Amino acid sequence: MAALSDAGVGEGRQHASHEVAALEPAEARRRFAAGLIAPTSGWCAGYAQANVIAVPRELAFDMLLFAQRNPKPCPVLDVIEAGQVSSEAAGVLTGPHADIRTDLPAYRVYRHGELVEEITDARAVWREDLVTFVIGCSFTFEHPLLAAGVPVRHLTAGRNVAMYRTTRRCRPAGALAGPLVVSLRGIPADRVADAVQISGRYPMVHGAPVHVGDPAVLGIGDLDHPDFGHPPLLEPGDEPVFWACGVTPQAMVMESRPELAITHAPGHMLVTDVRDSDCLFPWASRSTPQLRGPEDQRVSRSKGTSWAPAPSAVAPAVDPSVDWSASAFAFAC
Amino acid sequence: MAALSDAGVGEGRQHASHEVAALEPAEARRRFAAGLIAPTSGWCAGYAQANVIAVPRELAFDMLLFAQRNPKPCPVLDVIEAGQVSSEAAGVLTGPHADIRTDLPAYRVYRHGELVEEITDARAVWREDLVTFVIGCSFTFEHPLLAAGVPVRHLTAGRNVAMYRTTRRCRPAGALAGPLVVSLRGIPADRVADAVQISGRYPMVHGAPVHVGDPAVLGIGDLDHPDFGHPPLLEPGDEPVFWACGVTPQAMVMESRPELAITHAPGHMLVTDVRDSDCLFPWASRSTPQLRGPEDQRVSRSKGTSWAPAPSAVAPAVDPSVDWSASAFAFAC
Repeated sequence: MAALSDAGVGEGRQHASHEVAALEPAEARRRFAAGLIAPTSGWCAGYAQANVIAVPRELAFDMLLFAQRNPKPCPVLDVIEAGQVSSEAAGVLTGPHADIRTDLPAYRVYRHGELVEEITDARAVWREDLVTFVIGCSFTFEHPLLAAGVPVRHLTAGRNVAMYRTTRRCRPAGALAGPLVVSLRGIPADRVADAVQISGRYPMVHGAPVHVGDPAVLGIGDLDHPDFGHPPLLEPGDEPVFWACGVTPQAMVMESRPELAITHAPGHMLVTDVRDSDCLFPWASRSTPQLRGPEDQRVSRSKGTSWAPAPSAVAPAVDPSVDWSASAFAFAC
Repeated sequence: MAALSDAGVGEGRQHASHEVAALEPAEARRRFAAGLIAPTSGWCAGYAQANVIAVPRELAFDMLLFAQRNPKPCPVLDVIEAGQVSSEAAGVLTGPHADIRTDLPAYRVYRHGELVEEITDARAVWREDLVTFVIGCSFTFEHPLLAAGVPVRHLTAGRNVAMYRTTRRCRPAGALAGPLVVSLRGIPADRVADAVQISGRYPMVHGAPVHVGDPAVLGIGDLDHPDFGHPPLLEPGDEPVFWACGVTPQAMVMESRPELAITHAPGHMLVTDVRDSDCLFPWASRSTPQLRGPEDQRVSRSKGTSWAPAPSAVAPAVDPSVDWSASAFAFAC
């Protein structure tokens, strides 16, 4: 099958520019919804990108458990429940026009594990019972790498990243099993430690690499023929550095052969409304979708209500004579 | 209902000693399986502790999604699938005698949201269709706090920690909704920042606090009457510091009223085989259960097989004349 997403090389190169780096996510998604096909590496600097996989509801528990058990390749940013097409509550895919079925540059449709179609609009094949998993993508930390002076060669060249199946097995969950897929970036040897530490600050978008060096240890034979994406750009002195990749669920689908799965085309990601800075560990407890704390739905205390500052040695913190309940309101349950 | 776990105060004090701190998890679990009831704060220094909740299989997706959406109170260390009673693959509950149904000091049984029973052995009420969620517990970072000279007053006193329902709502998932529950520790004002940063290194066991100071902002009225556990020990100069708590699923059960849920008794945790050090962020990719990378199941390369060191500027990293596949083996799929 000729892949639409492979045809986008020139276009991708054309767009990997300051212009697309400066776009707001909603505008990038509007262009993709209108039919533009391009790898999203380099787009919308400062915003997290995400892998997508939608499966029928009866597989949703197995898929979520697969992700939970394999958090390096499958860090879940949000789950869009059956019948929904946006992710407002988590802040991942928001706005009046948000639609997970149209907002990606390209989709892949797998039936019984076979890739049967690559399309730019998934509405015709969508089903009401599909549950969508939005999984962090390593494109997110490419701008921080660039900012630190670590080259990201495929981004600069406007190409897709190289991705490979490995012989490392994911931990299975129910009916789902498959190999780890990795992305490769050639990193100058004297910047490998920087690349590890900088990407390691972003665990929700794959975090630190899983492997540095010899591809054969991962069962990768020919670097020039990746399983997904474009051949890598390695320069003299580069070390091959491998990150866990959100295409791992697609390799799992090919092996586990569920009735239906709709995914992004590799390298053609969902550009989310989540800021990179909200993915930095340690994150603010309510700034990042998957990681935010419970919603604060406290009864609105009037702005005028103040509380005494921190208890001091002079005033015991909890003096039995103080009726804490006097300033409190009813529990929520 | 008289709670077995409340009767354990004296016993707990007696056991919160160097003796129980030095125990191996398997030995602690053996004592609990034999009927001992005690809060586990302070037990088995160096090993992670965990909350437990088991629900029928038809609720398992909602429960896992609830945890995924509320990772501060519900960081999942592992999921024990229906019909299983240990967690070997994740290394959470291992060994020939491991049994999630007996290895906790005390269990609570909820039917339709009502706490109907507290027991030390759950085998009589267990069902084959129960899926068990093992959720990190903040007791895990208490030893690191102590090691840094930050007092952990309830541990030192051999008491259970104080826990409170708050008016902050968790993000719902399917049929499941409920409030955030927090644990309270009184921390000297000049050590609050240390407590935040030290606990923040352990995101899989609740990580950094969710709140420092005024309990009323969380909707907590009377600190001396916690919803779970024992009244707190606050000393002059202490600041009240609140961490997200793994009893949150129990508050959710009380509100959402599933047919059946079996949980640990608050403060009476599963002592796991996971080392504290494996919960430290950034963790080794294959050292921590929930966080480990995919299993390495590569075909055994003979120990004698070596690979050239990192490519240097002299030798291009990927010379087209080099046949990478020569040293590679077949893909797994």
